[in-house]
Amino acid sequence: MDSTKRTGTETGRVGIVGGGQLALMMAEVAPSLDVMTTVLAEHEDDCAVPAATATILGVPSDPAALDELAAAVDVVTFDHEQVDLALLGALVARGVAVRPGLRTLAVATNKVTMREQFAVAGLPVPAFTVVGREDDVAHAVEAFVAEHGLPVVAKPESGGYDGRGVFVEEDLASAVARVASLLASGRVLVEAHVDLVAELAVVVARSASGECIAYPAVETAQLDGMCREVVVPSALPDALSAEAQRIAIAIAELVDSTGVLAVEFFCDRAGELTICEVAARPHNSGHWTIEGSTTSQFANHLLGVLGRPLGPVDLTAPACVMVNVVGADDRADPACAVDEVDGDVAVHLYGKAARPGRKLGHVTALGDDRDATRRDAWAAVRALRGAMPAPGSLPAEVER
Amino acid sequence: MDSTKRTGTETGRVGIVGGGQLALMMAEVAPSLDVMTTVLAEHEDDCAVPAATATILGVPSDPAALDELAAAVDVVTFDHEQVDLALLGALVARGVAVRPGLRTLAVATNKVTMREQFAVAGLPVPAFTVVGREDDVAHAVEAFVAEHGLPVVAKPESGGYDGRGVFVEEDLASAVARVASLLASGRVLVEAHVDLVAELAVVVARSASGECIAYPAVETAQLDGMCREVVVPSALPDALSAEAQRIAIAIAELVDSTGVLAVEFFCDRAGELTICEVAARPHNSGHWTIEGSTTSQFANHLLGVLGRPLGPVDLTAPACVMVNVVGADDRADPACAVDEVDGDVAVHLYGKAARPGRKLGHVTALGDDRDATRRDAWAAVRALRGAMPAPGSLPAEVER
Repeated sequence: MDSTKRTGTETGRVGIVGGGQLALMMAEVAPSLDVMTTVLAEHEDDCAVPAATATILGVPSDPAALDELAAAVDVVTFDHEQVDLALLGALVARGVAVRPGLRTLAVATNKVTMREQFAVAGLPVPAFTVVGREDDVAHAVEAFVAEHGLPVVAKPESGGYDGRGVFVEEDLASAVARVASLLASGRVLVEAHVDLVAELAVVVARSASGECIAYPAVETAQLDGMCREVVVPSALPDALSAEAQRIAIAIAELVDSTGVLAVEFFCDRAGELTICEVAARPHNSGHWTIEGSTTSQFANHLLGVLGRPLGPVDLTAPACVMVNVVGADDRADPACAVDEVDGDVAVHLYGKAARPGRKLGHVTALGDDRDATRRDAWAAVRALRGAMPAPGSLPAEVER
Repeated sequence: MDSTKRTGTETGRVGIVGGGQLALMMAEVAPSLDVMTTVLAEHEDDCAVPAATATILGVPSDPAALDELAAAVDVVTFDHEQVDLALLGALVARGVAVRPGLRTLAVATNKVTMREQFAVAGLPVPAFTVVGREDDVAHAVEAFVAEHGLPVVAKPESGGYDGRGVFVEEDLASAVARVASLLASGRVLVEAHVDLVAELAVVVARSASGECIAYPAVETAQLDGMCREVVVPSALPDALSAEAQRIAIAIAELVDSTGVLAVEFFCDRAGELTICEVAARPHNSGHWTIEGSTTSQFANHLLGVLGRPLGPVDLTAPACVMVNVVGADDRADPACAVDEVDGDVAVHLYGKAARPGRKLGHVTALGDDRDATRRDAWAAVRALRGAMPAPGSLPAEVER
């Protein structure tokens, strides 16, 4: 294992590939941890640039830019998964500390790799098959549907995010057509559709030193495929939350993760968990930890990739609710309405131009009561002119 | 640089990830070079299995299977580019000789990485822009069309092959819709459409020792996006062929390739070349070399990845034509008709089940005259019951 040459009080230097909101929130917490951040950003106005200690302008597919980043820091980590694994592999082969490492990124960036490795390890995944370019598409999809029924879910092996890249097909003909079309960009994962009653997520922090700790399981609500609301703690049975934590830790160990890793789960009507997605970085389902946990996921990610001891992850309040601020159709800029938000709700805006459907920021409310805290959070989103869910798509207490 | 521990007459051991037709043709030539091949094949009936010295059954996304392959050989290479770059990177980081290496694979497996690196290096690529998930799709596509006109070509950054993953859009609205749809599987490359008069390809062999040699430029004909016919030598001016060779060698040096690398070019009405695609492995446009060159691309690939001296690439006849045998709609098995082919035409069938549109094999004809040799090759495909081009889609001499 490589090490980050930290001795006593030395400042840690973390390079972040990408200058988006995750890099921003890492950069914001870094000074309190005695960490300097250098972001490799494509544009000067990328949102992490003002908060970072230093910026290198360049694209992550430019080996020279990656070399410059690697030379400036102790460890390289990521804002997003649109990374060039071959170029990162070349860095690793030269001895650069890239964290999370390649074993972790292999799983986090490819749904086929993830499903196959998890299935072999006995972790709970939906029934699936993989269709490649050499396969007889109609035959493969028909055989899967004959065994597992409809609907089926088709996903390109890589590149999906925020509900993009997930196609639920209700009949055989459209499933075959969808898989054939998705083969244009690689192999296609075909999965049984889980009839879910809830979605959970667990963030696990793991240090290069081996220490591993799971945040509480949270309940997430997706709208249009995008995470919109996170409620802590979940209203699901404690045993289920503990099982989700146990599986998430098993995944972190299996893929030898470093820093933060997030696992999203489906919970079906029988109360069974299946693994939906894995992200090898701070995750939207963990943004609540900035105010809601004694150590945020961003802090523990930096501590973890630097091989330092992790911070404790105790709740700071009985209830915590995070809601994303998503651009509304009128392109209203939420930054103009910050003064209208109740002062007890934390507002994080990422400084991005307002566009319909774009994640522009998030709010976090703390409280003693789950329902009241949800109302506070959604009231803040409404005040910020963020997109609101259609009536009935979230429980009634939110819409009051 | 790593080395392959070859001393004098020692047998070279090459591991091949994937058991398809390229692995088959490598395995077929290997014994004559004193090379043993081990293929990592997904299925026992993968076509390379009978020809390989040894087989490991497993998927390329299984780290244990890759470890087993790496432990059995001196160098790991590839049948296809559906490889897990993160897992390969982990092998390289452990000192395994993976050839081509990560710098090469980065370019060969990602169209955005390729375009960006080539543009920086001053190599001729079509005008392009990259649209990512954070971009305003309509704005980005409109701006590109305003500058470069219609039609435009949209491609997902990874996973395309044989014309899949290439979308020519004639109007702005469909271009915007296409790019938005392709974002489901990652970034999208948007390119100016080249009004081409011909397509060329050059195979370059480069040894781990640094020796580098280009095969003659060949003219390729695509039907439905798939390479169907290769004619050697091309009928284009010698200066253009020499320019294509020069660019292909520059690419091989730029990406530090090892083994065989193929570059496909567009030639426009002004006689200008632009780079279309790069493959970091033996390529369909080089299958003719088995009979048409003094050393085949498969032989030079094995010699190159083992760091041995390359073989000469002189033509064995004044004209050489390769045509793919593609499955026809009636699913006729070409193996049943081999006896009907003129004995002077070489027939390569890959042992794959016949399906419409599937590459099942290829034929190669040698001769003194370009047109007569084309007729011989296409007559063999017709005898094999392969799919024939629609009337008028290839020059008249072929259809006689």
